[in-house]
Amino acid sequence: MHQVPNTMSEPKNDLFLRALRGEKVERPPVWMMRQAGRYLPDFMKLKEKYSFFERAETPELATEITVMPVHQVGVDAAILFSDILVIPNALEVPVQMVPGTGPVIENPIRTMGQVQQLPDIDVKDRLHYVFEAIEQTNQALEQVVPLIGFAGSPWTVFCYMVEGRGSKTFDKAKEFCYTQPEAAHLLLQKITNTTIAYLQEKAARGCHALQIFDSWGGLLAPMDYEHFSLKYIREIVDALHKTTPVIVFAKGCWFALEQMAQMPVSALGVDWTITPQMAREFTKFNATLQGNFDPARLLSPISEIEKLTRQMIDDFGTYKYIANLGHGILPNIPVDHAKAFVNTVKSYS
Amino acid sequence: MHQVPNTMSEPKNDLFLRALRGEKVERPPVWMMRQAGRYLPDFMKLKEKYSFFERAETPELATEITVMPVHQVGVDAAILFSDILVIPNALEVPVQMVPGTGPVIENPIRTMGQVQQLPDIDVKDRLHYVFEAIEQTNQALEQVVPLIGFAGSPWTVFCYMVEGRGSKTFDKAKEFCYTQPEAAHLLLQKITNTTIAYLQEKAARGCHALQIFDSWGGLLAPMDYEHFSLKYIREIVDALHKTTPVIVFAKGCWFALEQMAQMPVSALGVDWTITPQMAREFTKFNATLQGNFDPARLLSPISEIEKLTRQMIDDFGTYKYIANLGHGILPNIPVDHAKAFVNTVKSYS
Repeated sequence: MHQVPNTMSEPKNDLFLRALRGEKVERPPVWMMRQAGRYLPDFMKLKEKYSFFERAETPELATEITVMPVHQVGVDAAILFSDILVIPNALEVPVQMVPGTGPVIENPIRTMGQVQQLPDIDVKDRLHYVFEAIEQTNQALEQVVPLIGFAGSPWTVFCYMVEGRGSKTFDKAKEFCYTQPEAAHLLLQKITNTTIAYLQEKAARGCHALQIFDSWGGLLAPMDYEHFSLKYIREIVDALHKTTPVIVFAKGCWFALEQMAQMPVSALGVDWTITPQMAREFTKFNATLQGNFDPARLLSPISEIEKLTRQMIDDFGTYKYIANLGHGILPNIPVDHAKAFVNTVKSYS
Repeated sequence: MHQVPNTMSEPKNDLFLRALRGEKVERPPVWMMRQAGRYLPDFMKLKEKYSFFERAETPELATEITVMPVHQVGVDAAILFSDILVIPNALEVPVQMVPGTGPVIENPIRTMGQVQQLPDIDVKDRLHYVFEAIEQTNQALEQVVPLIGFAGSPWTVFCYMVEGRGSKTFDKAKEFCYTQPEAAHLLLQKITNTTIAYLQEKAARGCHALQIFDSWGGLLAPMDYEHFSLKYIREIVDALHKTTPVIVFAKGCWFALEQMAQMPVSALGVDWTITPQMAREFTKFNATLQGNFDPARLLSPISEIEKLTRQMIDDFGTYKYIANLGHGILPNIPVDHAKAFVNTVKSYS
């Protein structure tokens, strides 16, 4: 039986959870995608000593990295340091992180036979290190801020499993869908089922909210997006939303915002290529919106960051809103620029 | 004084030009972005023998490549084989094409000093090979179909000149804009002025229409798009539209379609991530629309290609519409799949 720790142990700073519930807040909560990452000098020290998967698979390291931005930048929520590609790894499709190249899968999925041979796994066993990291992180956070857990959308995880590496266009993944739709849907369903079990356990072990990252949904035409991505995201949301707030961030998927706002999500992430006004128009205040500062705009002078951040909040409004970037923070952002962003939100009135 | 050959020498197949003028047509005209390219076996033979810039800078080769898809696939318009990066080359910022990497600029622009040192050039002299290719191509085409000339948008050319190579995010180009806006605008203005002279000469030497490719506009937030890209595209359109029809294709820039439709353009290109219905809603039939078949969807079985192509035309309607892909054709598309797309449009009724 699952515990429901998000109601059992509400953190002291509950702004983020209240915004997810659509309650009025004194000011918008703020966190940053990839906030536990390469722009932090202390993270870089760990990166020099440990490989990517050592960091993700060692609960002590994942904990240390996860809490860093809470203490150093002052965000209102922590997000567990991990990677969306733990799922293929768990499904015995090994992923290597090659410096300078990114994730590489030596034997990508290209046939129905390969899909059928994927094992049925027990995520509690295979991904035990993630769940241990959640528990250790919550201890380290001392219930000060909530902890977000995440997973990739089935389509985005599928993209890597089929393409075998990062890509601008993921043409091989799309080719697989368009030439072998049965095998593609079987694989997407397999990823979906695994992801549901994975996220249910994340919530049970202490995540207060769950975010689904659909990084590559924006490569699909709207009709294909419905069939190959949104359908499976919907299954995940349906399975989780009753016990845990779910956020869906689908980069580049402005065209599906209206449909996504019909799902029982607590929030929708939006990237920086949509105006707050348009995002509200598409979603009609059905869901809290989260976003959408252009990560590259954190390279601007601090006075400009402050001005643009205030403008962003003016445009979204403080009701049903979580301030965030429109995508992950860039490695070359000075820490004081990230702080300027966070502090501008925190002093907004 | 410029000749106006597009009115002086109307090609026999004038469907494309009539659609650009917003006239009623028997069926939509069709061509494909990158139609003179790597999916054609005869192109690959030339590619094995000649380097990229040999092909682009030798009028005989550019002509041969440009007419290939007219004869082999049956498109309603030819587009001159060339590259948007002839502009940096002409501005003495040399571009190399590195196989497997793409364009590389060894000394990218990063300072105001570098911008100020860019020479004032005479495009007629520097880019004479392009204009010779236009004349030879029109002879080879025997006025059967119109010839399109193109250039990159100033922002897109700027991206390469500053970043120094292709990128998913062009963060260095964006950083240059946000930290050195004066230098960025000076460079964008320089590219704009050069592009206007270049496209005016292209029209004078025989291009019946001109297309501006804004491949990387979709990386900018809407407000930044206005300042760093659309402003300069508008200058180009204003300078050209009275003598030659202008098409603007800004990939990923759905958010600016409404403003773009206010420009005196003859057509707007749209990519495959927007539904025809939405594209019409944003542009209100002010401009002819051109697009937007997902290039990866040409990997589908032929019967599926035919069905989806008919659906696309149904959705755009035949009035003020030019059938095309939503981006360049992929190298791994079988020629008979490309033909199926073209023939489905040609037999639409």
